[in-house]
Amino acid sequence: MLPVALDVMGGDHAPGAQLEGAARAHAAGLPVLLVGDEARLRHRSGGLPLVHASQVVTMDDRATAPLRTKPDSSVRRAMEAARDGQAAAVVTCGHSGAAMASAMHVLRKLPGVERPALVTQVPRADGGEAVILDLGANIDCKPSTLACFARLGSAYASAMLPGVPAPRVGLLSNGEERSKGNAQIRAALPLLDALEGVRFVGPVEPAAVLRGDVDVLVCDGFAGNVMLKTVEATAELVGGVLKRELQRHPLESMGAVMLGRAFKRFRRRTQARNYGGALLVGIDGVVVVGHGRSDPVAVHSAVEVAAQCVERDLVGHVRRALAGACEQEPSR
Amino acid sequence: MLPVALDVMGGDHAPGAQLEGAARAHAAGLPVLLVGDEARLRHRSGGLPLVHASQVVTMDDRATAPLRTKPDSSVRRAMEAARDGQAAAVVTCGHSGAAMASAMHVLRKLPGVERPALVTQVPRADGGEAVILDLGANIDCKPSTLACFARLGSAYASAMLPGVPAPRVGLLSNGEERSKGNAQIRAALPLLDALEGVRFVGPVEPAAVLRGDVDVLVCDGFAGNVMLKTVEATAELVGGVLKRELQRHPLESMGAVMLGRAFKRFRRRTQARNYGGALLVGIDGVVVVGHGRSDPVAVHSAVEVAAQCVERDLVGHVRRALAGACEQEPSR
Repeated sequence: MLPVALDVMGGDHAPGAQLEGAARAHAAGLPVLLVGDEARLRHRSGGLPLVHASQVVTMDDRATAPLRTKPDSSVRRAMEAARDGQAAAVVTCGHSGAAMASAMHVLRKLPGVERPALVTQVPRADGGEAVILDLGANIDCKPSTLACFARLGSAYASAMLPGVPAPRVGLLSNGEERSKGNAQIRAALPLLDALEGVRFVGPVEPAAVLRGDVDVLVCDGFAGNVMLKTVEATAELVGGVLKRELQRHPLESMGAVMLGRAFKRFRRRTQARNYGGALLVGIDGVVVVGHGRSDPVAVHSAVEVAAQCVERDLVGHVRRALAGACEQEPSR
Repeated sequence: MLPVALDVMGGDHAPGAQLEGAARAHAAGLPVLLVGDEARLRHRSGGLPLVHASQVVTMDDRATAPLRTKPDSSVRRAMEAARDGQAAAVVTCGHSGAAMASAMHVLRKLPGVERPALVTQVPRADGGEAVILDLGANIDCKPSTLACFARLGSAYASAMLPGVPAPRVGLLSNGEERSKGNAQIRAALPLLDALEGVRFVGPVEPAAVLRGDVDVLVCDGFAGNVMLKTVEATAELVGGVLKRELQRHPLESMGAVMLGRAFKRFRRRTQARNYGGALLVGIDGVVVVGHGRSDPVAVHSAVEVAAQCVERDLVGHVRRALAGACEQEPSR
């Protein structure tokens, strides 16, 4: 397999966390191509191959910086390495808007995609996982964009979820009645109904997703980001509160220790994938956007996710599922 | 204290759950005034006073039904009992849109309120509670409506949260940077900045709310409903997963029993208030809108919440805080 191109300069703890994560991935048998400032990285690359990029996109830059003011930025050079056949996939933990913009510019959208989306998986009560998109790449969405996400999410789920050949797709809403939902949701419903090859089950509430009633949850980037972050924050809250509850009762303090261990296992199992970040689906290439705060373990995990998507030919799968489906935006 | 008017006909399990809930509240020393169909309720009222209403708003009705086609509906008659000095507050577990419409029509908005909001409290990791509004009474909101909610939520929090005289108010967003947020959030920011008498701290993420960085979270009814339901569903998911985690390990199975007990205590403590439903704030009267699926315990809890709001003079508090503050909608 070709290496995964890693934007070494992007992230709150770059380049240290990125370099250490790359070393871990390499040690685990995953080939990595470093992309970043050669002068700064030469003595710290641990012998991994390096592509030079003299510029760095910071959090203060605009999303379009890699296209305009910073053409030699590490995130753009990483995309170019994938486009030019030097790498099989890209991982960046930097500015997610800049990642999206440079992926669209360099790797291009797949035919039929209105907007690419950030996608990840959350644990369900039935032991499975639900796919959620968009998670924040598209904050304000048109109804047609939500229909595009339904198709992308369905294709992603059938490629990546084991044993789910015909994923059930729901649209996040404040009730299951079709009369509920905001103006955007109500306008999107008939578009999702009309999609061929997508098993759309209608509007769904958060509980239905976590219970396992659907395999794919479609939402705009604002609602998806809020929902995912609420799941994460609530899990932490409940874990902490339960532990304190047990500690308050002397007879149950042993339970607190057990709970702590169980919670760690739960987190390890369920966050293994999310930990690495989200995948940008709808792009003609595998692009994983990690958390800005990624530590070396998270960077390693992101490289793993990217390699897994390459292995399963996620892009080919999405391309075939899409063929002539999503409403194409006027080219610009 | 005047009794709490209970819409006996509204709710998935009405009138049975409502009657039993009323009996429980009465037994606990809370006076209740039943409102519903006298012919159906006469022999089941348990001696509680009853106001007759011949009509019932069903979930298939429009929100405006109490104003137009069903003027003798139980929800409207309950509001009238409060308006006419027969009751101190109203509780209904029926159609929430109809509750909102009849509350606005009969009891009227407080001066300076653009739109009333549904508000409740969620537990925080620091042991306190955060106030969230709107929870679904206003699905599509203008930026000015969010500013109105900031004022209502701040007034509610200073009346109802112990020891929080100057509540910190945050606006739900997908990041703390002011450049994030959707178009609605970005348009609302300067309006919230400009509010006098409101301690607005800026855009906040879900984790900041559950951690305790703010006392009041402002959002539109769509996002608020999704966030609250995600908190509830995730708490159930995590509780269940941890229990199974512990059961999988024989040495920790005792922990599962302890965890089950701790989780019940947690739920009892944190849901005591939410359980009864949400309060409609911004109305010239105390109106509690319970879950449709309320059982007798939830109905009793809703009556308790209503009585507590009356005791603390919530409406007077909100009225004083508002005096000349929210942008007034053109009268219609």
